[in-house]
Amino acid sequence: VNFNNSTKTEKGVGLDVQLISEVNVENSVFVERNFTKNEINYCLQQPSPNSSFAGRWAAKEAVLKAVSSLVGKPLWTGGAGAPLIDIEIVRKDGEAPVVKFHNDAKKLVKKFGVKNVKITISHSGSYSVAMALAE
Amino acid sequence: VNFNNSTKTEKGVGLDVQLISEVNVENSVFVERNFTKNEINYCLQQPSPNSSFAGRWAAKEAVLKAVSSLVGKPLWTGGAGAPLIDIEIVRKDGEAPVVKFHNDAKKLVKKFGVKNVKITISHSGSYSVAMALAE
Amino acid sequence: VNFNNSTKTEKGVGLDVQLISEVNVENSVFVERNFTKNEINYCLQQPSPNSSFAGRWAAKEAVLKAVSSLVGKPLWTGGAGAPLIDIEIVRKDGEAPVVKFHNDAKKLVKKFGVKNVKITISHSGSYSVAMALAE
Repeated sequence: VNFNNSTKTEKGVGLDVQLISEVNVENSVFVERNFTKNEINYCLQQPSPNSSFAGRWAAKEAVLKAVSSLVGKPLWTGGAGAPLIDIEIVRKDGEAPVVKFHNDAKKLVKKFGVKNVKITISHSGSYSVAMALAE
Repeated sequence: VNFNNSTKTEKGVGLDVQLISEVNVENSVFVERNFTKNEINYCLQQPSPNSSFAGRWAAKEAVLKAVSSLVGKPLWTGGAGAPLIDIEIVRKDGEAPVVKFHNDAKKLVKKFGVKNVKITISHSGSYSVAMALAE
Repeated sequence: VNFNNSTKTEKGVGLDVQLISEVNVENSVFVERNFTKNEINYCLQQPSPNSSFAGRWAAKEAVLKAVSSLVGKPLWTGGAGAPLIDIEIVRKDGEAPVVKFHNDAKKLVKKFGVKNVKITISHSGSYSVAMALAE
């Protein structure tokens, strides 16, 4: 028995940086296409909504990259790109943010055996950054 | 026997970015409250002490986030925040920086079964960034 | 039998940020010493070659840090630093970038039992960032 093969330890990583001013928060079509109602409410209540939207955007991109890095190929191949609204970033104050997948995103991560995606977000000055680890 | 359950592979992640100019190195009360004597000596000997203090600050924040991400809840809940001086960043030139926990921080990571926290730091231009992985 | 010891789950992490304007792409000696022909061709075909060179530079540095973080000591100790040209960043459009080791870098990672290094790169505004996970 080869115990080394009994647990898959491989991970996928995703990192994303966003110049906060480049995330077009004034464009309500863009916002509603990419963020859930809960995300929009959360961001609008933060001290700097623009930073929060940029941080969430970076987080969604980081999750996409981490899942592709784990699976070894792009997950979303049909059409004009991945629906980022289906990768929701949820958080309670004081706790680490959590990723929830919906609709096609949920089916795809299940199909490819992704068990868990951890996410971390930070803002300072003109930038938001996020990193995701998929396992 | 389910070998897949025999090894816990879950990780916690923490990322932090800091605008170097925002870390108030001129304020000795702030510095002595948050950095150990060894950290202060190390930073003052670097080519850019401000960048080094900002990098260590980002690293301490990244460690806090990574441990919370692993444990699934905030570790420090009593009072005015975590004592960052108890999360020490140690390094020898040319080697990767290492995290050492002291006092309450040491008790908490032991209580929650945190075995190891890896840390990495970088500076460029106006920013310091750090990332931590807790297991 | 202690199943907990049957799988080594420890990881190494490396993060790097680069101010894009500081990566000296005009200096062909610097470029040819640090980037493979494939990397140079790829970067020159991108919308912003400077960002791509800076991103690859950050990725190579992140890989070096991640491997040192995993192994617990610096890998390259002889002479004027690690030959970054031997840490190649390969990618196909739409897929996650992949690390390929050559020459001494290949021998060293094999010697130290590094099985895999995952890499992720991002650009925005004036900065490129990269993160690596070694296992």
